[in-house]
Amino acid sequence: MYFASDNCGPAHPAVMQAVADANNSYQPSYGADAMTDELRRLIRDQFEAPEAAVYLVATGTAANSLALSTLAQSWQTIFCTPLAHIHTDECNAPEFYTGGAKLSLVGEADKMTPDQLAAAIEGWTYGDVHVSQRGPVSITQVTEQGHIYSLKEINALTGMARTYRLPVHMDGARFANALAALGCTPAEMTWRAGIDALSFGGTKNGCMGVEAVIFFDPKHAWEFELRRKRAAHLFSKHRYLSAQMIGYLRDKLWRDTATQANAACARLVAGLREIPGAVITNTPQANMIFATLPRATHQRLHDAGAAYGLFAPLKGDDPDEALPMRLVCDWSMSDDLIDRFLDIARG
Amino acid sequence: MYFASDNCGPAHPAVMQAVADANNSYQPSYGADAMTDELRRLIRDQFEAPEAAVYLVATGTAANSLALSTLAQSWQTIFCTPLAHIHTDECNAPEFYTGGAKLSLVGEADKMTPDQLAAAIEGWTYGDVHVSQRGPVSITQVTEQGHIYSLKEINALTGMARTYRLPVHMDGARFANALAALGCTPAEMTWRAGIDALSFGGTKNGCMGVEAVIFFDPKHAWEFELRRKRAAHLFSKHRYLSAQMIGYLRDKLWRDTATQANAACARLVAGLREIPGAVITNTPQANMIFATLPRATHQRLHDAGAAYGLFAPLKGDDPDEALPMRLVCDWSMSDDLIDRFLDIARG
Amino acid sequence: MYFASDNCGPAHPAVMQAVADANNSYQPSYGADAMTDELRRLIRDQFEAPEAAVYLVATGTAANSLALSTLAQSWQTIFCTPLAHIHTDECNAPEFYTGGAKLSLVGEADKMTPDQLAAAIEGWTYGDVHVSQRGPVSITQVTEQGHIYSLKEINALTGMARTYRLPVHMDGARFANALAALGCTPAEMTWRAGIDALSFGGTKNGCMGVEAVIFFDPKHAWEFELRRKRAAHLFSKHRYLSAQMIGYLRDKLWRDTATQANAACARLVAGLREIPGAVITNTPQANMIFATLPRATHQRLHDAGAAYGLFAPLKGDDPDEALPMRLVCDWSMSDDLIDRFLDIARG
Amino acid sequence: MYFASDNCGPAHPAVMQAVADANNSYQPSYGADAMTDELRRLIRDQFEAPEAAVYLVATGTAANSLALSTLAQSWQTIFCTPLAHIHTDECNAPEFYTGGAKLSLVGEADKMTPDQLAAAIEGWTYGDVHVSQRGPVSITQVTEQGHIYSLKEINALTGMARTYRLPVHMDGARFANALAALGCTPAEMTWRAGIDALSFGGTKNGCMGVEAVIFFDPKHAWEFELRRKRAAHLFSKHRYLSAQMIGYLRDKLWRDTATQANAACARLVAGLREIPGAVITNTPQANMIFATLPRATHQRLHDAGAAYGLFAPLKGDDPDEALPMRLVCDWSMSDDLIDRFLDIARG
Repeated sequence: MYFASDNCGPAHPAVMQAVADANNSYQPSYGADAMTDELRRLIRDQFEAPEAAVYLVATGTAANSLALSTLAQSWQTIFCTPLAHIHTDECNAPEFYTGGAKLSLVGEADKMTPDQLAAAIEGWTYGDVHVSQRGPVSITQVTEQGHIYSLKEINALTGMARTYRLPVHMDGARFANALAALGCTPAEMTWRAGIDALSFGGTKNGCMGVEAVIFFDPKHAWEFELRRKRAAHLFSKHRYLSAQMIGYLRDKLWRDTATQANAACARLVAGLREIPGAVITNTPQANMIFATLPRATHQRLHDAGAAYGLFAPLKGDDPDEALPMRLVCDWSMSDDLIDRFLDIARG
Repeated sequence: MYFASDNCGPAHPAVMQAVADANNSYQPSYGADAMTDELRRLIRDQFEAPEAAVYLVATGTAANSLALSTLAQSWQTIFCTPLAHIHTDECNAPEFYTGGAKLSLVGEADKMTPDQLAAAIEGWTYGDVHVSQRGPVSITQVTEQGHIYSLKEINALTGMARTYRLPVHMDGARFANALAALGCTPAEMTWRAGIDALSFGGTKNGCMGVEAVIFFDPKHAWEFELRRKRAAHLFSKHRYLSAQMIGYLRDKLWRDTATQANAACARLVAGLREIPGAVITNTPQANMIFATLPRATHQRLHDAGAAYGLFAPLKGDDPDEALPMRLVCDWSMSDDLIDRFLDIARG
Repeated sequence: MYFASDNCGPAHPAVMQAVADANNSYQPSYGADAMTDELRRLIRDQFEAPEAAVYLVATGTAANSLALSTLAQSWQTIFCTPLAHIHTDECNAPEFYTGGAKLSLVGEADKMTPDQLAAAIEGWTYGDVHVSQRGPVSITQVTEQGHIYSLKEINALTGMARTYRLPVHMDGARFANALAALGCTPAEMTWRAGIDALSFGGTKNGCMGVEAVIFFDPKHAWEFELRRKRAAHLFSKHRYLSAQMIGYLRDKLWRDTATQANAACARLVAGLREIPGAVITNTPQANMIFATLPRATHQRLHDAGAAYGLFAPLKGDDPDEALPMRLVCDWSMSDDLIDRFLDIARG
Repeated sequence: MYFASDNCGPAHPAVMQAVADANNSYQPSYGADAMTDELRRLIRDQFEAPEAAVYLVATGTAANSLALSTLAQSWQTIFCTPLAHIHTDECNAPEFYTGGAKLSLVGEADKMTPDQLAAAIEGWTYGDVHVSQRGPVSITQVTEQGHIYSLKEINALTGMARTYRLPVHMDGARFANALAALGCTPAEMTWRAGIDALSFGGTKNGCMGVEAVIFFDPKHAWEFELRRKRAAHLFSKHRYLSAQMIGYLRDKLWRDTATQANAACARLVAGLREIPGAVITNTPQANMIFATLPRATHQRLHDAGAAYGLFAPLKGDDPDEALPMRLVCDWSMSDDLIDRFLDIARG
């Protein structure tokens, strides 16, 4: 009963098999191997982007920071929401990678609107040498609160960014979950919607540790390669990253695992709604639930060994007090585990 | 016949098995899992360093850069040889990670002497605000040219560094090969010899991609953790790094694989010495050979598909011209492959 | 009639004379001269801080960025208001100098309260490697909106910072104007109130270009010297900075010039209150006024050549529309100029 | 008798007068004033470069670091000699400003040859992601040892750089002294000779503290302005920098002061050659002499209060031992002072 995060579950057997299969020969290092060629082909095909520049790294923070540092200058500001992972959970990695770019926070929630974006951009006067210069916009799909931008919303944001001639990055650590929820194509959710660079997550959705950075315009390719190497994120035995990503992309496994994760989440939400005292505090659209449960319910779950994000002290006098929590389902979450969790919660 | 580098071969089956075994449950992320505890215990045991701070990253450049940035201030200079990997092959990663520290080159060869080190240190006047301030010393074991510092040599260098109160880092991407060659203990080659921080290589000697950074004095622990996270080198599914390193350390597999690699290299050297026109240009002490062969010999090897580092154009008029090369053996190199290579070279 | 900023007026004759007097001999460079000793003595005396480390630079942004980079680590966040000069007007200089520290914005106004500060600090969980680590607090005295923290307010803020063991920096570009307004001693407004480092402004209050950085605990001295040199802010002919600051400090000229500037501002405010349609939008406590005037009044002032900050387009249909403005008085502003300005505004 | 450096003497009266003249009015800040326009015009005229982008800073290190950071990427290496000021005397400022670019040392002396430059460039394989990428070349005119590149030599070096499509920067802290010695025009020694960016020194040759950065191709202008502001080198009361530079340029004062300094140096050299035991160890071409004198002679000079660079301990047993020294003459050095120095040296 491990709902703490989608980075706590195992990798998918097909991914593991692809890695095992890769372990049988001598291969050129640093991505000059055939598997890396294949991986690139698969991404370009599935994104309908034959010119895209495609690179692998092992962590989401690396993908975000390297992508943003390629799009931003050190004297610029990146626009993101106050809840964006790049702001809240990366220990200043974007600031480090960009050489000191600023993050300007847009709106108050985990999704930004075009008007909020415009207001934030206008907050830094164009052409004034004294202020942080306007730089890239970064949006998160799925957001940190489990929300999803519709295609229309993405287009509206990239349109606004384009008005100011600013590039747009998408943090897609849970890209697959969003895609499964929206039922659209990768191209529709990215370059057709005006996205310039994508952090395409693999780790949370069935891999051991691999993320792709995709630039839909390859003009940034060589600079990115240098930045990746300089940041020590170019793997020598690169095939083991490529193999994971191949296993993940082949037969569109990634869409299946994301669909599973979303379905598990939906089952869990449905069950939670029946739990006495439970309140769902976000609108779960992918694989994350924010909710409150009474303290006594948390205590029961705790005693049974359930693991999840609890954002208040478990100890306290009032058994009915509503304590906030986060629950995440990954692809591997079984109906049995979910039902057991709900049984315990039900009391 | 792939002698291009020890990052071209497969991972060891025992390492792969450890990774496969790790893939069966939910685990806390970011290194809070039990496997990471075990990995830490194994390193501390084998290095006889119960207080050591131990961290994993996935690339050697990350290990070096993060270790050095923890030891050095931005306004200091790091002392290393002109052939050090941190100078020649990391695309300014040490400069990036340290926020602009300088690398001062010691001596002319791939091993430095205490006198050369002292001269380089004296080159920057102590207490002069205008100059690069004296910072850590970094030595490489095995060196980039396949040489090994004896314990006595290491002690002499760290002693000299200590005279100036400078810390010493060891780039041990091929630490195991040196250890196997010297037949000493890990402690003797590191903290007992005055080493403060070690980049302990796994990737080149049987892993997919894992390196440990070991600080023998744990005072740097928390700063290092922050630096690793900020640099995007903290893995969420950290168990897959830990599992590799556990497989590598368990039953001292790493010493066996290094012994195999060194033995393969010795066999190859012995054979090469018999090849007409072959000249061994370094003194191979571990798993790397620098040699020259006549152009015609290279041509035969090339035609047969042999892969290795060739540092001159293959095309040329003179079939007898000696062209320089590098040959590296990893743990997986079989006698058959070596003999086949020698057969072809022999003509 | 130049009210655009207190960096638009001339330097005080006594400062100019001190510079001229300094121009008559050979002097050791880089601050090893006798004038720099004298300058240091004057600051320590006037601040009753015999141990303080005192350094000169030529710009306020240099003072702030160097001071903050000495107090903050790259992986930390600095706490300041959304209106702080370091956030709004220094083109990412603090981020550059700190190697990528983040600025966390406290409250909504140009003064922060202890509760807002605590809330901002609590926003970054202590000891969590994923988040920006808690770093120094920076307050501005006089604020960018012309407000002043009382001694009690400063003490409350530094007390709160001390609770979290965070150091406190004061951006005192207009330190003298605040001191003159509060009528307290430099010590009372700084180290006795818990300030660790001060950017002590000279430029806006009668100098050509000089600011002191004062650390009340000298433990940071050598690091600061290295940071200043590395940032190219150590002057070779340092005496010309020292001479300015000596002229500024001698006979407490700086307190007189600030008193003059504040008095000029008070005269201007009093006059403005009589202008039909004028609204004073801040509570001017030092030498800055934020106000609105009807468009027609602005037009008259504009036609007469008055210069000040106008934050809306002058052109427009409605002559009665209130347009926001900023007026700043420096030490040199004469009653005549003020009265002329008011006459024109009066219409 | 102060021959320690040309940053120890006073500023020229005409420069001081220009500053005093500038102190009489309200002026727009940050370089938007009329004096800055005039200064720009003067430089463009005297360099016959009507399109040049011209900026002022207060220190030579700022000029060099900002210029180089505009020309170089963080993953590149800058090529300079081992004696270049940017390498030996700027406490890692170029590394800091460039975000971690490397300095690759060319040759062994203070002047580089085209062949040495080519060898250094070839040392970093083009297009190899692992190595430091080839970046700008920086030459120093006058060199740190008092030597001068002839126009032919400059052209040969920039030609070689051009072969590799690398830009060339000139550190001209003593530009005027070189120009006076060569008797050529500013254009001939810069853009006509292939120089892209120049640090044009004023401080050492008669100013208090001002240097110009000149880009002969203005494409770098806006980036430079942002870099200067972000580095806190944009002065608010900019007129005091402009006034110095105007005083310096008007009536070509700078060429006169440099001619004086060179002549003083020539007189000093001629005298030194007559001193028993004196050996001139460089070929003084501008205003710097490297020489040795017997210890006893140094002792006499020391006792008489002469100040200069002495690169060995004054104390010692052997009165005849030759101790190395550096002597620098600035514009203000009088014949009397020189003769007095020589008298004492003569014994």
